[in-house]
Amino acid sequence: MRQPLFMGVDGGATRTRARLRDAQGRQLGEGAAGASNARFKDSAFAEVLKACRAAADEAGLDEGDLSRVHAGFGLAGTQQAWDRDFILAQPHPFASVVVDTDAYAAYLGACGDRDGAILIVGTGFAGLAVINGERITVGGWGDDIADEGSGMMIGRNAIRRSIWAMEGMAPLTPLAEAVLARFDNDAAKAVEWAERATPGDYGSFAPAVFEHAARRDALAMPILEEAARDVTRAIARLLELGAPTVAMIGGVFPEILPWLAPPYRDVCVAPESDAADGAILMAKNAFAERKLA
Amino acid sequence: MRQPLFMGVDGGATRTRARLRDAQGRQLGEGAAGASNARFKDSAFAEVLKACRAAADEAGLDEGDLSRVHAGFGLAGTQQAWDRDFILAQPHPFASVVVDTDAYAAYLGACGDRDGAILIVGTGFAGLAVINGERITVGGWGDDIADEGSGMMIGRNAIRRSIWAMEGMAPLTPLAEAVLARFDNDAAKAVEWAERATPGDYGSFAPAVFEHAARRDALAMPILEEAARDVTRAIARLLELGAPTVAMIGGVFPEILPWLAPPYRDVCVAPESDAADGAILMAKNAFAERKLA
Repeated sequence: MRQPLFMGVDGGATRTRARLRDAQGRQLGEGAAGASNARFKDSAFAEVLKACRAAADEAGLDEGDLSRVHAGFGLAGTQQAWDRDFILAQPHPFASVVVDTDAYAAYLGACGDRDGAILIVGTGFAGLAVINGERITVGGWGDDIADEGSGMMIGRNAIRRSIWAMEGMAPLTPLAEAVLARFDNDAAKAVEWAERATPGDYGSFAPAVFEHAARRDALAMPILEEAARDVTRAIARLLELGAPTVAMIGGVFPEILPWLAPPYRDVCVAPESDAADGAILMAKNAFAERKLA
Repeated sequence: MRQPLFMGVDGGATRTRARLRDAQGRQLGEGAAGASNARFKDSAFAEVLKACRAAADEAGLDEGDLSRVHAGFGLAGTQQAWDRDFILAQPHPFASVVVDTDAYAAYLGACGDRDGAILIVGTGFAGLAVINGERITVGGWGDDIADEGSGMMIGRNAIRRSIWAMEGMAPLTPLAEAVLARFDNDAAKAVEWAERATPGDYGSFAPAVFEHAARRDALAMPILEEAARDVTRAIARLLELGAPTVAMIGGVFPEILPWLAPPYRDVCVAPESDAADGAILMAKNAFAERKLA
């Protein structure tokens, strides 16, 4: 009998990554593709398959070999059963498919099967604790009414306070000058830009805030102090729920980490592995359950 | 020769008011109509005419009498010359028409022709100082990147912090319960609502924040303390520019006033009159200039 193989997919609003491992955990190949948030429906599934086939190609497998592959898809936008069911209803070449959220895949990658918590601080912001097998989310409600502490919010606050500076309501620091220069020092251009701006567009201002704060910029400092309070609020809650540590996910988390107070900083840990490996664990767990059943 | 009459129009994103006075300042009639933000183009001008004709009707004037009327239109959305020019290019039945922003009309109504400042704190937020005839704006950049201190922002913060409370990151106070009840205690419903919400929709939560804060609600207090800081920042700037006092405009300003520190509270004054009377002053000033020229 041919050995089973395991494919893990980490799919979000901007890109999809797939990784193939054998039953012993050896990595055979990796692949990437475009956005696969499940809300994108058909195009999301097409990108997932594209990333998987790229990983299979790298492993030297042909289409027929995919029937040996048990796949786990960790996809953004699959909180709702009907979105998961849409993905599960698509025809596929694999031996089996399981679907869950990208956050759950990130948790499995970060913590393995043990109780624990992850906190995503990137362009967006969301936490997940798994305690006694029960999942509890913290945040993740998007940029209109939540996502405090995210790169998006840090960038938005930089624009907000730079306009204060332009109008004489805050010090015109180097950060303010750098931000305003991107709008030709014209607040009306910032208003026009904001009408079309995505969370990622706002987040693109976050690196400048960290750079200027490192030089004690008077406008940058309170932005990061506020972001640190927002991150701390979520960490405190994840600990209170029973998580022993909080795994740091997302590009902004390592940057904000030194701004946290020691008792919170010290419980933040690097994830054991990533969401693609978490998705592989999803596929393996489902495979093991079927073998036992 | 027939005496000139003066019509003032205050037009914004939700409604239009017109008022007719004679040269001695006696009020002859008033009228109202729908939205006339100049960005609405033809429909804005149609609503302006509708409000003016209603005021003329109340004064007992017929269409021919409108040729005695000098009109001043204070309209939102006329910051840009091309938007003003569009309004001025429309055919009209009046002896003359001048157009300016609703904020300038509000300043003229509040301060007459003297140096001074207004601050609008309603659903939105914007300040205007006129010093030695020069106009300086403060804020007014909309809800994406500005409008801190507005009813919109107070409402948004109430939703934000109520979700914190729901998730165990803030005290579940009576304000939080009231806000969450409007979303059936389901944050996903708040996310869906926020996708379509207007600034006015957010602002509709502000009265509840003031009510609960009056009873020292632990969630409402910091929201209003933050809003008071935002309002104070603008007042401080308007004073620094040389305004002796700041006229309070907008429904939220009287509510937040008691939250300000005394040195700022004490310079806030009731406007002498409203933007419709300011627009009448615009029309009279233009008429006087032509007579002198």
